Amino acid sequence: MNLLVSGASGFIGKHLVRYLQQEGHSVHLFIRAGSDVSSLDASGIFTFEEDIPSLAAYLKSYAIEGIIHLASCYLSRHRPDQIKELILSNIYLGTVLLEAAVGSGVQWFLNTGTIWQHYQSGAEGAYHPVNLYAASKQAFEAMAQYYLETTALRFCTLKLCDTYGPGDTRRKIFQLFHHISCTGEKLAMSAGSQKLDLLHIDDVVKGFGRLADLLASDRPLEKAYVLSSGRHYTLRSLASLYETCTGCKLSIDWGGRPYRLREVMTPWRGPVLPGWEPQVSLEEGLRSLSENLK
Amino acid sequence: MNLLVSGASGFIGKHLVRYLQQEGHSVHLFIRAGSDVSSLDASGIFTFEEDIPSLAAYLKSYAIEGIIHLASCYLSRHRPDQIKELILSNIYLGTVLLEAAVGSGVQWFLNTGTIWQHYQSGAEGAYHPVNLYAASKQAFEAMAQYYLETTALRFCTLKLCDTYGPGDTRRKIFQLFHHISCTGEKLAMSAGSQKLDLLHIDDVVKGFGRLADLLASDRPLEKAYVLSSGRHYTLRSLASLYETCTGCKLSIDWGGRPYRLREVMTPWRGPVLPGWEPQVSLEEGLRSLSENLK
Repeated sequence: MNLLVSGASGFIGKHLVRYLQQEGHSVHLFIRAGSDVSSLDASGIFTFEEDIPSLAAYLKSYAIEGIIHLASCYLSRHRPDQIKELILSNIYLGTVLLEAAVGSGVQWFLNTGTIWQHYQSGAEGAYHPVNLYAASKQAFEAMAQYYLETTALRFCTLKLCDTYGPGDTRRKIFQLFHHISCTGEKLAMSAGSQKLDLLHIDDVVKGFGRLADLLASDRPLEKAYVLSSGRHYTLRSLASLYETCTGCKLSIDWGGRPYRLREVMTPWRGPVLPGWEPQVSLEEGLRSLSENLK
Repeated sequence: MNLLVSGASGFIGKHLVRYLQQEGHSVHLFIRAGSDVSSLDASGIFTFEEDIPSLAAYLKSYAIEGIIHLASCYLSRHRPDQIKELILSNIYLGTVLLEAAVGSGVQWFLNTGTIWQHYQSGAEGAYHPVNLYAASKQAFEAMAQYYLETTALRFCTLKLCDTYGPGDTRRKIFQLFHHISCTGEKLAMSAGSQKLDLLHIDDVVKGFGRLADLLASDRPLEKAYVLSSGRHYTLRSLASLYETCTGCKLSIDWGGRPYRLREVMTPWRGPVLPGWEPQVSLEEGLRSLSENLK
């Protein structure tokens, strides 16, 4: 298929582009001026400079069939001066892609959401944002609804849990563990009873590939699916698993700081993407991560 | 009460500010550079220039208790190049106000929505946007949800039907009727069976005043209420009522053009604001409008 991917310069994006190419797809990139995608070998690059008709013409001329929208501004906690960028990245860019897709021959749109749209939600998946980042993801779905109801575009959201893997430059838990195991510094953490749902990047990209295939078919789909590892680890058990798998010692002051406002104690589990299941256990993932970091 | 009103330069805003002042409130205006509010006599004006901490300081220093957020970019049908402005006006500005309100002593926030968030919806009020404008209103509610769930701010949305009254410079139905009755030009319209719910501005501002009072009390509120005239008129019957009330003759080619995509045939009616009911009948409203235009 001819695909357009946004957010290819990010951790998941880079892995996803390579995976889609291995699967035989022709991958075009949607980037903003200044994004670095030099490490990727794409079929084409469209740099967005506020011109939607140009984007529509690009989609048409390369016969793009599907758009995978990964681009996102991730903020665990926002500062006031980050709100505009959050809204432009997480609501405006996606709306631009939808507007251009309509009437340009694009048949489907794969959107990326987060399980953080469902803080302490039950199986029904009520909307309760963990943070303003999650709220902006929900807001984009509200914008998308207009296009879904007025056009034939197929649309589905893939809601991600925490992800990890080689090449991750985000300040996430394993980066933190790696850092303190190298420096020997003692880290003050919360009491550590919060559970995490951690998915290896190899499983993540396969999930995207699977949903892309489903969207390209005419099979009826739910509005959203979740990629979940199927297992929850407390932060404490994660630390000891990390020590076991990597052979490193972590110096952590458990309870040395309070839980965050709206700390997610149990990650939400919604309907998991059909025909997909995770292959990489956390033990395997951690071992390969540790090899990778050596 | 000390109130901050956004969107005061618009048709509803101007009327609302004067009404709130008559009711004895102290009204401050939140405007963007370039907005003309010279016809209004406000207690203070805050011009927003991307600085949220300054806004928060303003709210604190004037002990603002409630915010009435009217500012909106209204587009019946959008062009691609209007999407950014739509999102900045209808999602970003409101988020800015919420962010500044939190921790600044503001106790409540009155948001303005539209019945167009509910195209062909039943009583349950499912979300189906008529246009991208309505979608952006829903998107803002998704953003607001974060602040509601993480702070003590009271928040409620007032969903408006069509509004009319003296001083309206928007290109709405009565402006159109007035125009063709003056020029004698023949107007091609749709078949005219779509129903409209039209509320006079005097009733609209009283609705805002009523909801402001409810928000300032500790009475439990729904997430949203509707201001509805309680009556539906077809476009055709509206034209003949206009002729009767104003004594003008309208030359209309009914069926001379097709209905619009997603033409609202029957406006949605949700839960009406308690303790409020419209006072101005359409006949009275039209007669005073006609006096006003002479």
